[in-house]
Amino acid sequence: MDLESVRDSLIRQEDTIVFSLIERAKFPINSWAYSPPQNGVDAFSASSFLHSFVRESEALHAKAGRYENPEENPFFPDDLPPSMVPTHDYKQVLHPAGSSINVNKTIWDIYLNKLLPLFAAEGDDGNYGLTAACDLACLQAISRRIHYGKFVAEVKFKESPEEYGPAIHDQDRAGLMKMLTFEAVEEMVKKRVEKKATVFGQEVNLSDNSKSKETYKVDPSVVSRLYEEWVMPLTKQVQVEYLLRRLD
Amino acid sequence: MDLESVRDSLIRQEDTIVFSLIERAKFPINSWAYSPPQNGVDAFSASSFLHSFVRESEALHAKAGRYENPEENPFFPDDLPPSMVPTHDYKQVLHPAGSSINVNKTIWDIYLNKLLPLFAAEGDDGNYGLTAACDLACLQAISRRIHYGKFVAEVKFKESPEEYGPAIHDQDRAGLMKMLTFEAVEEMVKKRVEKKATVFGQEVNLSDNSKSKETYKVDPSVVSRLYEEWVMPLTKQVQVEYLLRRLD
Repeated sequence: MDLESVRDSLIRQEDTIVFSLIERAKFPINSWAYSPPQNGVDAFSASSFLHSFVRESEALHAKAGRYENPEENPFFPDDLPPSMVPTHDYKQVLHPAGSSINVNKTIWDIYLNKLLPLFAAEGDDGNYGLTAACDLACLQAISRRIHYGKFVAEVKFKESPEEYGPAIHDQDRAGLMKMLTFEAVEEMVKKRVEKKATVFGQEVNLSDNSKSKETYKVDPSVVSRLYEEWVMPLTKQVQVEYLLRRLD
Repeated sequence: MDLESVRDSLIRQEDTIVFSLIERAKFPINSWAYSPPQNGVDAFSASSFLHSFVRESEALHAKAGRYENPEENPFFPDDLPPSMVPTHDYKQVLHPAGSSINVNKTIWDIYLNKLLPLFAAEGDDGNYGLTAACDLACLQAISRRIHYGKFVAEVKFKESPEEYGPAIHDQDRAGLMKMLTFEAVEEMVKKRVEKKATVFGQEVNLSDNSKSKETYKVDPSVVSRLYEEWVMPLTKQVQVEYLLRRLD
């Protein structure tokens, strides 16, 4: 694992995020899925239908070994069943003190309260199960991308420990954040994900009718904003938290 | 529901299928997931890990109301738990005698034994849970597309019952198949899904470097073949089966 492979993974994960948003946009907002439960929803007795759906999905995925992969971080890590599949020898790249950093509570809140209303149409078509499956895919893709910051931080630290060491010793959060911020790169990433939303979200016709390309399944500016306001800042926050523990 | 809206849905579903294949292609074939169980996999005691993963996922999705939607058809319809979400009044478009047609056994077999080896790389990276989640998305997308043939058949029948009536009375399978076959349209669909695989599976860069567009995450000819050999023939088979029961 080096900066090149980390970069490739981050770029590939952009596609996954854009695909997942486009698929979620097939359904209206379907707010019922996010409200506290009412009568007749005994099977989903947690704080909302989506909460229960994600919790039960994660239990199944845990049995299937998903969280053995250090790139995966559950939203509800408590009481997950153990993996039932043959153990794979994942490379232990991360420093143990930082490997369990988990900002999924924040991601959940942002996804439901800020992002979703920006790209899901008003309305309720009753497809709560299908909608929740799409939400799960979005949440997992965004979570994986943000927590990949641990790998970014590890690789950067390994490449120049002398650069980060003093700020880590001083537990200098602001200093680390500054060292991890590259505005030109962030600007490029924003532009690239916006372009991906136009490419992947267009109506593809055999006739190269450019008019049909003017509407997109998810507003490309929303994807750019997702990265600017949430994905990149949270990734850096994960990196900073990871580095602060890197010498523990 | 008319031919126009049915056509729009079929076109939109192409995007979902291509996205799901691209996501599955991130992982190598991971054959262990499809083999009969061995020691240490007690939790997944069915005929393969994927079998158990899909069966358990479908149980959760059933509780979440997925199969209340007549567009959705489970792979393991026996013993599914009832829906626990508020009942949505889905339009009952389909004729009852044909609504339960289910060719998922065939789809499962084709997906695992024919399609997957065409686009998943050799190898085993141990990510069985992540792989199975991608397989589930592929299977569900392909299944929805093929079973949408019931709606296609219903709409065609409603538009010209006098055209289909005699062949239905005679239970003339071959005659119906001929009436439902439009080679020029099929050719166009094949070309369109192939194009979608090039558009959605390309490496998107900010610089419009055309060289990077020469490799795709899933070989576009595989998507064309998927439609030619399996999706379109099975959709027509579903249509024929549906029409044969349409006057019951």
